[in-house]
Amino acid sequence: MRMSEYFMPTLKESPKEAEIVSHKLMLRAGMVKQTSSGIYAWQPLGFRVLKRIEQIVREEQNATGAQEILMPTLQSSDLWKESGRYEDYGKEMLRIKDRHERDLLYGPTNEEMITDIVRTHVHSYKDLPKNLYHIQWKFRDEVRPRFGVMRGREFLMKDNYSFDLDYEGALYSYQKMFLAYLRTYTRMGLRAFPMRADTGPIGGDLSHEFIILADTGESEVFADKKWNEVDLTAAGLSYDNKKDVNDYYEKMTSIYAATDEKHDPENCPVATDQLNRARGIEVGHIFYFGTKYSAPMKATVQNKDGEVVPLEMGSYGIGVSRLVGAIIEASHDDSGIIWPEDVAPYKIALINLDPEESVCNEFCEKLYKQLQDEFNKAPFFDEILYDERKARPGAKFADMDLIGIPWQIRKGSRQDGDTVTLKKRDSDEKHEVSIGQALDMIRESSQLNKKAA
Amino acid sequence: MRMSEYFMPTLKESPKEAEIVSHKLMLRAGMVKQTSSGIYAWQPLGFRVLKRIEQIVREEQNATGAQEILMPTLQSSDLWKESGRYEDYGKEMLRIKDRHERDLLYGPTNEEMITDIVRTHVHSYKDLPKNLYHIQWKFRDEVRPRFGVMRGREFLMKDNYSFDLDYEGALYSYQKMFLAYLRTYTRMGLRAFPMRADTGPIGGDLSHEFIILADTGESEVFADKKWNEVDLTAAGLSYDNKKDVNDYYEKMTSIYAATDEKHDPENCPVATDQLNRARGIEVGHIFYFGTKYSAPMKATVQNKDGEVVPLEMGSYGIGVSRLVGAIIEASHDDSGIIWPEDVAPYKIALINLDPEESVCNEFCEKLYKQLQDEFNKAPFFDEILYDERKARPGAKFADMDLIGIPWQIRKGSRQDGDTVTLKKRDSDEKHEVSIGQALDMIRESSQLNKKAA
Repeated sequence: MRMSEYFMPTLKESPKEAEIVSHKLMLRAGMVKQTSSGIYAWQPLGFRVLKRIEQIVREEQNATGAQEILMPTLQSSDLWKESGRYEDYGKEMLRIKDRHERDLLYGPTNEEMITDIVRTHVHSYKDLPKNLYHIQWKFRDEVRPRFGVMRGREFLMKDNYSFDLDYEGALYSYQKMFLAYLRTYTRMGLRAFPMRADTGPIGGDLSHEFIILADTGESEVFADKKWNEVDLTAAGLSYDNKKDVNDYYEKMTSIYAATDEKHDPENCPVATDQLNRARGIEVGHIFYFGTKYSAPMKATVQNKDGEVVPLEMGSYGIGVSRLVGAIIEASHDDSGIIWPEDVAPYKIALINLDPEESVCNEFCEKLYKQLQDEFNKAPFFDEILYDERKARPGAKFADMDLIGIPWQIRKGSRQDGDTVTLKKRDSDEKHEVSIGQALDMIRESSQLNKKAA
Repeated sequence: MRMSEYFMPTLKESPKEAEIVSHKLMLRAGMVKQTSSGIYAWQPLGFRVLKRIEQIVREEQNATGAQEILMPTLQSSDLWKESGRYEDYGKEMLRIKDRHERDLLYGPTNEEMITDIVRTHVHSYKDLPKNLYHIQWKFRDEVRPRFGVMRGREFLMKDNYSFDLDYEGALYSYQKMFLAYLRTYTRMGLRAFPMRADTGPIGGDLSHEFIILADTGESEVFADKKWNEVDLTAAGLSYDNKKDVNDYYEKMTSIYAATDEKHDPENCPVATDQLNRARGIEVGHIFYFGTKYSAPMKATVQNKDGEVVPLEMGSYGIGVSRLVGAIIEASHDDSGIIWPEDVAPYKIALINLDPEESVCNEFCEKLYKQLQDEFNKAPFFDEILYDERKARPGAKFADMDLIGIPWQIRKGSRQDGDTVTLKKRDSDEKHEVSIGQALDMIRESSQLNKKAA
């Protein structure tokens, strides 16, 4: 993408309405624009990050065998009356009347609707297990929306729902999602800790939140200091190996971590000096709730003995739009955002420092094409942002630092031949090297290699 | 995807509520489930087709230089009061009050919101032209939703908006979209005819609908018989060549075609015996409306002379979810859907006729892996649907014909060695050939070659 044509309205000053760093930086980088209280439009740069995160979530869900569907944003109130939640949700649920005065609502979650879909079509244990997910906009009418996309009203969530014949199957489904969540966050460059959590309006007995630590976190969390050393990548395990999945889950849940609602100082198994106390941002929440919805809604199957039994269910949510803010909270400096490579809106920024000098300009134009040929991934995304604007070098550097592109290749007319400056955004290292060496360094970067593999 | 694990709830009988063939077939193939009047959930097979269509639309938009953003589904009423359309839209607009009694609405279209975004950030002719699009769910509260996803209430639309300094620029933007639309439909296997059309609540002077012919079409259309011979592929033109784009547009718009609102029998330039009269389904609509929104909303820029002028605008819509139905209306037979290859949910169906016979089963299992390695496209979609269910061959054939996968590879225990049956869904041709020959025939298929290129 050529910056001269790009719709990327960056701001020099931090907008006053933004309280936390991710909100400030998203506005300054021109990623989003608030269109109503707690509702945002995603401008091109922000849209790309949102899509990268969505795609990582999708790939990790597909790897578990979960199947993608898409439920609508609007729901009829009827199903919510069946489950008994229509009143429970209170004012957070956006209630709507259509032209025929029928009660609709903007879905805050989809347990009822998915239970209805599954009860319509699934009638035998032979059709189980099933795990269905969708990535769709939800609405929760927060009293006081704040922190930009971190606590918006209209938000993008991946939610899935598992259906099993019995508790053992449901637990296995829960454990697979537990593992998938850790892998998902790792790919986004995050360390997200699983913590025992309250189940809230979803209900059920067993629940974990996945939490990243940040000073601006909305809640207090308590975790054994052992977590500092724990490998959260969940590497090398197969979802098909039930024992391995269970062992990993048991290991991870044996180390103490709890949100403040669940933490009981009186009965905490960890000594005070061994306990970390920190602020956390929730980036996912998983639930096992058994027959809470299937029983009242009569979502049943015949088991092997011909008995009719209610389905065992769990649900699993990742806040896709919230993650955009959460990643910035975890990864930024005074100059701006530092995107982890797999979620960066562009991988490489090519900065032409002298677009009006013909040798420099020709070099950069040719290099732009070469970089596109090598790094672009069909068909979704181009990976190169090319700054060929007639502007001061300092302004160009500031913009690229602000929007956090992982690699900068800078070329000016004072540099001989094929010499360029390669800058790595996260470490701020700069190298005066030939373009060949610069590309080798980019290629050798473990993350780009991993993706190419 | 293994059919034994797949959530694909096909129906043997046509549901009574479905009036037209696409709606019947979508329900029978388990693609969608109605969740409220005119609102649908997309089950895995339907979701895949929706995503394929969305991706074709996206790629063809990106090729024009349009930039993707994402506006929210809910809008504040304020902007619609500024443009004067808040009252115009009547009951088709879904009006909502939030917990603080503020007026929201579920966006039926986004002219106001995009004008607000652009007026906030674009102030100079140097920032022009701009063309921004998004693919987002919309809502129109139809009095009588019908025809399944063809006239639903919640529907997925690609809409974009062009911003230019003057009429000449705006016309060029309009013509590029005209071209992009023809290319988009061609890739979906459709012949869509551009027709002069009414502008309705969007407004403006210049407008074309893109219409495919089908007996179940919602409106009557009139077109010169010359259209039967016209090449609609718009091949070989560059968007950067203004003259070529203009010439192509002039050529295509010189042949008469009009919807019934625009057709005037008294003044029709085509003789009656030279005029086709048919039913049509609208699959896209483009508008040039100049300053209709920019003037009241004060979306202005400074031109080269320092004068402040309102932006020249157009908007362009493609009904993504509606296209799923429209393609089926255009491409089906008595046995079911016939997907054009580029929108098919899977490219190849592998049918294991004797999963309980070990030689046949091993052959198919090995072939399944081989096909996945060769044809799957990372990271989004697998391309192979593998029917390894214990079911009668006739039932398996009927399912695959119903859901319309372009290629079927069938293998039974009575077939020697590596002999398989290759069936092409559209022509119903069957070939008893070696698997090597079968794969060569699939690879040679022009459309698969085109995509691999």
